[in-house]
Amino acid sequence: MSESRVGQRSKVAVLGASGYAGRELCGLVERHPGLALAGRFSARLGVEPEAPQSPVDAPIERLDLERLDGLDGVFVCAPHGASAPLVETALARGLKVVDLSADFRLRDGALYERVYGAVHPAPQLLDGAVYGLTEERRADVQRAQLVANPGCYPTSVLLPLVPLVRAGLLAKDSAVIADCKSGLSGAGKEPSAKTHFGAVHENFAAYGVGTHRHQPEIEQEALGTKVVFVPHLLPVFRGILSTLYLDPAPGIAARDVLNCLQARYAGEPFVRVFERGLPDLSRVQRTNQCHIGAADAFGKVVVVSCLDNLVKGAAGQALQNMNLMLARPETEGLV
Amino acid sequence: MSESRVGQRSKVAVLGASGYAGRELCGLVERHPGLALAGRFSARLGVEPEAPQSPVDAPIERLDLERLDGLDGVFVCAPHGASAPLVETALARGLKVVDLSADFRLRDGALYERVYGAVHPAPQLLDGAVYGLTEERRADVQRAQLVANPGCYPTSVLLPLVPLVRAGLLAKDSAVIADCKSGLSGAGKEPSAKTHFGAVHENFAAYGVGTHRHQPEIEQEALGTKVVFVPHLLPVFRGILSTLYLDPAPGIAARDVLNCLQARYAGEPFVRVFERGLPDLSRVQRTNQCHIGAADAFGKVVVVSCLDNLVKGAAGQALQNMNLMLARPETEGLV
Amino acid sequence: MSESRVGQRSKVAVLGASGYAGRELCGLVERHPGLALAGRFSARLGVEPEAPQSPVDAPIERLDLERLDGLDGVFVCAPHGASAPLVETALARGLKVVDLSADFRLRDGALYERVYGAVHPAPQLLDGAVYGLTEERRADVQRAQLVANPGCYPTSVLLPLVPLVRAGLLAKDSAVIADCKSGLSGAGKEPSAKTHFGAVHENFAAYGVGTHRHQPEIEQEALGTKVVFVPHLLPVFRGILSTLYLDPAPGIAARDVLNCLQARYAGEPFVRVFERGLPDLSRVQRTNQCHIGAADAFGKVVVVSCLDNLVKGAAGQALQNMNLMLARPETEGLV
Amino acid sequence: MSESRVGQRSKVAVLGASGYAGRELCGLVERHPGLALAGRFSARLGVEPEAPQSPVDAPIERLDLERLDGLDGVFVCAPHGASAPLVETALARGLKVVDLSADFRLRDGALYERVYGAVHPAPQLLDGAVYGLTEERRADVQRAQLVANPGCYPTSVLLPLVPLVRAGLLAKDSAVIADCKSGLSGAGKEPSAKTHFGAVHENFAAYGVGTHRHQPEIEQEALGTKVVFVPHLLPVFRGILSTLYLDPAPGIAARDVLNCLQARYAGEPFVRVFERGLPDLSRVQRTNQCHIGAADAFGKVVVVSCLDNLVKGAAGQALQNMNLMLARPETEGLV
Repeated sequence: MSESRVGQRSKVAVLGASGYAGRELCGLVERHPGLALAGRFSARLGVEPEAPQSPVDAPIERLDLERLDGLDGVFVCAPHGASAPLVETALARGLKVVDLSADFRLRDGALYERVYGAVHPAPQLLDGAVYGLTEERRADVQRAQLVANPGCYPTSVLLPLVPLVRAGLLAKDSAVIADCKSGLSGAGKEPSAKTHFGAVHENFAAYGVGTHRHQPEIEQEALGTKVVFVPHLLPVFRGILSTLYLDPAPGIAARDVLNCLQARYAGEPFVRVFERGLPDLSRVQRTNQCHIGAADAFGKVVVVSCLDNLVKGAAGQALQNMNLMLARPETEGLV
Repeated sequence: MSESRVGQRSKVAVLGASGYAGRELCGLVERHPGLALAGRFSARLGVEPEAPQSPVDAPIERLDLERLDGLDGVFVCAPHGASAPLVETALARGLKVVDLSADFRLRDGALYERVYGAVHPAPQLLDGAVYGLTEERRADVQRAQLVANPGCYPTSVLLPLVPLVRAGLLAKDSAVIADCKSGLSGAGKEPSAKTHFGAVHENFAAYGVGTHRHQPEIEQEALGTKVVFVPHLLPVFRGILSTLYLDPAPGIAARDVLNCLQARYAGEPFVRVFERGLPDLSRVQRTNQCHIGAADAFGKVVVVSCLDNLVKGAAGQALQNMNLMLARPETEGLV
Repeated sequence: MSESRVGQRSKVAVLGASGYAGRELCGLVERHPGLALAGRFSARLGVEPEAPQSPVDAPIERLDLERLDGLDGVFVCAPHGASAPLVETALARGLKVVDLSADFRLRDGALYERVYGAVHPAPQLLDGAVYGLTEERRADVQRAQLVANPGCYPTSVLLPLVPLVRAGLLAKDSAVIADCKSGLSGAGKEPSAKTHFGAVHENFAAYGVGTHRHQPEIEQEALGTKVVFVPHLLPVFRGILSTLYLDPAPGIAARDVLNCLQARYAGEPFVRVFERGLPDLSRVQRTNQCHIGAADAFGKVVVVSCLDNLVKGAAGQALQNMNLMLARPETEGLV
Repeated sequence: MSESRVGQRSKVAVLGASGYAGRELCGLVERHPGLALAGRFSARLGVEPEAPQSPVDAPIERLDLERLDGLDGVFVCAPHGASAPLVETALARGLKVVDLSADFRLRDGALYERVYGAVHPAPQLLDGAVYGLTEERRADVQRAQLVANPGCYPTSVLLPLVPLVRAGLLAKDSAVIADCKSGLSGAGKEPSAKTHFGAVHENFAAYGVGTHRHQPEIEQEALGTKVVFVPHLLPVFRGILSTLYLDPAPGIAARDVLNCLQARYAGEPFVRVFERGLPDLSRVQRTNQCHIGAADAFGKVVVVSCLDNLVKGAAGQALQNMNLMLARPETEGLV
């Protein structure tokens, strides 16, 4: 890499680089030909990050706000609530921000308060934030200063669902069942009784039924269609597979659903609609792809959607968005 | 164990002892205080079984029909199609038979032909066969000569569903979604591209959507309620977790569903309805238990049902049925 | 179970019932035909144990010392250091005690202090404690008030090694390499960065090289033979497989090693020496068995030993010892 | 990628593209900035390959020898015995060949016959073949027409061992124990009782003790040092961890071993010697790295070496060699 080309790279930093999404982002940015990773920071201001576990791990630094000066963009990978103040700070310095937390996903501050149990920390920023489901909001993302990166489950549900709703392929007033299964990395890196190997390996369970915080996020973006979302925890590390059960409009079958999705996503680099057969996790892991298939089943249309929760469901989509915000090629560093 | 007590034991054999269900049955019968295992046979007449993989494995013998004489009962663990002739032979010798294959589950020979692609091998036995979902058909099982042991998925779906249908707790004409996830042992012991470790580990997929042979079995037993059944393959060895999505009748919620199921299964030794919370695989593995929980979710009632596909979903329920057929205590050898 | 027979049961309690070993012991005692489980207690006096995670879990009670009165025996499953005071208390009440911690395994209090970094909490009990490798110390165990249950790794190493040393089959002054691999349950139930699913699944590592506390325990019992012990963490839940590399005495080969071990363990219910082939984890999991095999390899004799770290390596051997201490059949409740 | 730059790419093909190593190679070549993948072929001449399992899989073609004309190099990923004729054919066309099979690893045709049970299929090529442990044989590889790519286990053992032998750090006449553990992908893609999920998951075993074909390969390259190699099968997909037990020369300890290896591998892009701590699989998976650490343990020096068996142990090292043979930068496409 010549000096001159490095000079043309956009400079970005990752705040919250020790969690799974932050670590994934650092890896993606390091391999990105057009970005330079100016810092991997702990998400908490002034808190000394832990030493790396191995000599192979790149060190994570204590966040020093002056280090943000002169950057082009920043990824914020902090927990909800902790993220908003960091976002404010970065915006005030004129940086483009992709926030991977839930802080700016819900447009309605009152809904945020009900769902997250706290007054929104920066309500004045809500109007300007763009919900970054890239394929749906490309033009808005390009112009945005702040992108709220979608949740992993919502991405897997909305990519197949939204075009079908828009095309009117669902029966009127029907509810969509979204039976979703995620690998353990979705639960984060924090050790707990729930993330212990002994609790996950050779086990499987539903969780958060009727209460998961991705439900209102899905509802907000589903164009008025009702969705019943139930998440489950898989004994794998990476990947989400969502099984959607749709009541098709009269005369509509899986073939029509596939035709609609194929037309919608033709030319999209990161969504692949199968001509036949159904996707599985193995082919989307470590990629920014969402794979979609559909089949008829006893009066319903079953749509299966797969992605890597840490890539298309988090760090990869965040990078896709940042590429657009920095006027770089959307696929750069992602293929 | 004194000689006299051994004399009082019922004598049974396992045909098809090398597969997962057969092996599980042999283990259960060996630990059963009231049964004596008179033989573990290969399912194919006259075919020499493979040598045991290790000195610890009990040998499996070539089936010799004369070895069935004098027995009280036999478990048939052969593939569908191959099972019916063995069942006929055993019945002709006056033995009680529990057949773990699909050969006698569907009451309608014409349906069998459509689903299994072959004329039924012993249609004259269909009328006398009892579908052995024990909790539903206890009295019939006690009088039966031939019990068709239910499929693993149908057991997990029907135990929670049937009492709710009977009690009228479901909305009229609504379809139940049964999103089911099974461990790999449900796919059997035969090596194939699908059972290879590299295809299963760190992976997850739906399969048989719209075509799985357990769909007509579930439909037959669901008392007229429509069920949309979609199976998935989990990277675990044992266990099925079924997530059912119900449209409740007006005014009905998860609490009513739990009350109904608790009343129905009070006193049942092998079905446990949770007062709160949802079950997971870990607590049913290696038991003959079915655990059931329920929760409200955005207008639907979500019911989660868990069992070990090799025990309550196969060998355990088979033994539960055989206990009844031989007039032994139903729970003997199962607790 | 008739009233009178219940009356003849020995009454035992488990202190420290919430950890993996304690939970395993409770399960074994509940299924034991000759023991009654009088209590499952938290190991810490007066500390309120956590609520059970599910309605299926039996509750664990706060330890009240008066509840120990009238019992016959007690299993102590507390961390080292915390165990000794509980042992003292139980012995003072006249109970037989099997201690699963490391507190009474090393005969030398000064060595304990070096290894565990603390003065021994009850050095006056060290002389009376019997190291409970049952097959080696059966007569002593039968007479003991206090048995120090061996560590999981030492059990897997000593069962094959001690008879070979005694028979003089090893080259003079040679060191035995013990390359040992354990499932994650050996690391205990406490959530940490090391027991997180994301750190264990699809991973493998050595740990504690040159520093593991089971090294002095193995050395103490190895009859003067030098052992180089290196443990590794397997991405499985249960089981230890130890690969031992022996320099045989002149003229000695794997066949002689097997002959020696077969002669030694003929009639032993819980040790199985393979005539040919090598054992694997799958056949010892959830049993109290130790399986042993041997093969020649380029001048060394390789001995492979397998057991379930939670059963023969902890709770099962503890029960085997308690059976002997209470003058019950050694195999009762274990087959 | 501009047309002109594509024109400067070297053209290569993969014979035997459907196995794990072949698939890995295709992926690496596709992402390689300096190579063009001219074909992914079935290894068997004229045999129609299977259809891809999913629309996402690139198709594999029937091998047509004319398709090799005009290529610069070819990777042969066929089973031993089947590989040699393909290698001959490719060499005759003037291509550079990296053979991933065992056919050209042993320099001695008579030894090949003893180990592989067949006369060597192309003994006239043995003299010209270079054993491609790249770090050891860089200059030879650069000049070679045919490179025999090392086995996965030998690579993990030889990289740490050879420099220590050369430096005289081992005790005279001592034997090195190499206790090696590999993920299941090392066993290949063929379905069998041994690769079935039910045989691997939650299991662990040694295999091939005293008979594995990598033993003579290790011996050939170990500069006269005796190695006792015992492989084990891990329930993971990717990775080898080898634990070596060395008798150090007088006065030598782990620190000296590390110093020697650090000096040897300073500047090597694909070998990393840890200053402290020991490596694990997670940090080498999907990389071409070999990580090495060492510790003292009771008179021995324990060296732990980790790599990804499909990358540095197969496809990655093959590409590293091909880069050199085609006079390209050694690390191109590998970082």
